[in-house]
Amino acid sequence: MKLPALDPATLTPAIGITRYPEQYRGPVAKRERRALGDPCGLKSFGVNLTTVAPGGWSSQRHWHSREDEFIFIVSGELVLVTNGGEQVLRAGQCAGFPANSGDGHHFINRTGKPATILEVGGRDPQDAVDYPDVDMMVRPTQEGRKFMSKSGEPY
Amino acid sequence: MKLPALDPATLTPAIGITRYPEQYRGPVAKRERRALGDPCGLKSFGVNLTTVAPGGWSSQRHWHSREDEFIFIVSGELVLVTNGGEQVLRAGQCAGFPANSGDGHHFINRTGKPATILEVGGRDPQDAVDYPDVDMMVRPTQEGRKFMSKSGEPY
Repeated sequence: MKLPALDPATLTPAIGITRYPEQYRGPVAKRERRALGDPCGLKSFGVNLTTVAPGGWSSQRHWHSREDEFIFIVSGELVLVTNGGEQVLRAGQCAGFPANSGDGHHFINRTGKPATILEVGGRDPQDAVDYPDVDMMVRPTQEGRKFMSKSGEPY
Repeated sequence: MKLPALDPATLTPAIGITRYPEQYRGPVAKRERRALGDPCGLKSFGVNLTTVAPGGWSSQRHWHSREDEFIFIVSGELVLVTNGGEQVLRAGQCAGFPANSGDGHHFINRTGKPATILEVGGRDPQDAVDYPDVDMMVRPTQEGRKFMSKSGEPY
């Protein structure tokens, strides 16, 4: 019988893996992401444990059309950037990003130490993602969700 | 503009609040639960930050019919009990409980210090909950989800 507990440290992280086009990958090149949802058998939402290196970003700034997102700071300190400005978050603090808010968010590590966050999000195949700061978006297609330019050219 | 970050320490916890009938409340009497989903504007899943006192339980052992559940240990040490036996979890470890597993779970604090977990779960009004160890269940009704005995007598 498979027991339900999992130590994320036993999982190999995806380092800098992204479907962003090359020109937008720099800030996430050293991001370490461990996907916990599948190994934990979850279907209705996904969970990542993500470590952001000093100087790195959690992602390009974005918002989801249909998926809520929740972030809990596990260790370290990160700056959350949204349309409303910046907020500094430390271990034990959290933030929520409701679907379709129209307000992009991401986290920047301005400290000299790694920072780790737990990311929880929906798993909606019809979800779209908008990136206000760069020429990129995600749209659902017949072949799944695809990254493309804002004019619809595939990346 | 409301900014998205939240410090859970600013929220008043619900201490020992439960809809269990009185005979099953003892193990959760000192449980401190801070609901984060609503203050974070989340609709598609819920999040609680829950502190289990020494000797206390996170809940009666249970499983959900339609909601996945995910737990991340924020601090301290807890024993996870399922049909497969016991597992000791420490800060940074996690566990997943897929919907309709038929395998009840809960966490027991056997240490002398409080332990805190982040709990993520679905928000399905048709969800049912089964409690293998006690005469209690939750079933959806026209007036919402209700606690009742296994014979269907309301609590």
